[in-house]
Amino acid sequence: MNQAPSSPPQFDDAFRTRLLELLCWRRDVRRFRSEPLLPGTLERLIEIACLAPSVGLSQPWRFVIVDDIRRRQAVLDNFESCNAEALNAYGDDLSDRYAALKLAGLREAPCQFAVFADRGTMTGHGLGRRTMPEMAEYSAVTAVFSLWLAARAEGIGMGWVSILEPAVIAAALDLPADWRFIGYFCLGYPQAEEDSPELERAGWEQRRPAAGSIVRR
Amino acid sequence: MNQAPSSPPQFDDAFRTRLLELLCWRRDVRRFRSEPLLPGTLERLIEIACLAPSVGLSQPWRFVIVDDIRRRQAVLDNFESCNAEALNAYGDDLSDRYAALKLAGLREAPCQFAVFADRGTMTGHGLGRRTMPEMAEYSAVTAVFSLWLAARAEGIGMGWVSILEPAVIAAALDLPADWRFIGYFCLGYPQAEEDSPELERAGWEQRRPAAGSIVRR
Repeated sequence: MNQAPSSPPQFDDAFRTRLLELLCWRRDVRRFRSEPLLPGTLERLIEIACLAPSVGLSQPWRFVIVDDIRRRQAVLDNFESCNAEALNAYGDDLSDRYAALKLAGLREAPCQFAVFADRGTMTGHGLGRRTMPEMAEYSAVTAVFSLWLAARAEGIGMGWVSILEPAVIAAALDLPADWRFIGYFCLGYPQAEEDSPELERAGWEQRRPAAGSIVRR
Repeated sequence: MNQAPSSPPQFDDAFRTRLLELLCWRRDVRRFRSEPLLPGTLERLIEIACLAPSVGLSQPWRFVIVDDIRRRQAVLDNFESCNAEALNAYGDDLSDRYAALKLAGLREAPCQFAVFADRGTMTGHGLGRRTMPEMAEYSAVTAVFSLWLAARAEGIGMGWVSILEPAVIAAALDLPADWRFIGYFCLGYPQAEEDSPELERAGWEQRRPAAGSIVRR
């Protein structure tokens, strides 16, 4: 990760246009092709992820690469249980639509990992976390998103699975109970490339104009 | 934001190299030049931020543009109070080093905004948030990081201020008490461009090899 030039890069309009395309075509992927990633791909993407900002330079992200088939099955079991409960909680109007959604690629994705945030880390000496301990999790999320963008720039899709019980996943992966679960991630080549979210194409929800998210003070 | 081509973009090695440079040279900026951003810059960056992923397409991010001088002062007052408390909490060995750090550009940054996550939003019908309600905050963080990268690609620096009390900031900005505070952000042209974190250059903490953040299961 030391390839950066010693003089600051100048980014031009062409790069900014491509960056915008990357952000437009990044997707939460649930439909993967079965072919594996090249060996070392995930480790390389994790190196890029570690360029992310972290509160007080605490680097609290923990990447858990999950290869064991029984551990993957335990994650899938928990997903199916949580997903069934979610389905039951919707009323008649939404439950049919929910049931028709594909919400994870856990059976197909060749590469899977979990991310946690270690609030207890002494790295960074607690700087910036005194009033906002949740900054550890937010730092880990910026690492996740860095990995996501770098993967997409290589034609690799990622899906973020949150229909899981954090404590169950931590136990299934035999990890410290005080690590905060950020998410479970599927990585692989996508079956299709799209510039709109699958939930939008499926009619579940639509994107809203940014102006509706702005408040002025 | 509808400039995306209808056929998927092909990202090449040159783009990936530039993207890596962007991630390497993104910084948490605390030293800003005083010149203002062009009118409309923040609004345009917020549009890009809204391309971020969100759980269940809930788009829970709320951007609060802070122009009022008294509200900015209230944020600065709270930062100074929290920063003084943090300083007092460090022992002799660290307090001198902490006192020497510049941790925010609140006095200089021409453009300032806060970001919150609205856990109560019905957009997305709660999908993916049942077992992990914190996914609303994580979604907002991906929007923040999208804005950060897009800003840096324009030569604009951003600083994330977390040495603040969330409830005090929400009150100072007259916002719903149930919005979750993500951070307060300073935006402007940086005095210098750097490829290493200010906290590393100041000797507060150093970056660790990515391998130390990887666990295998």
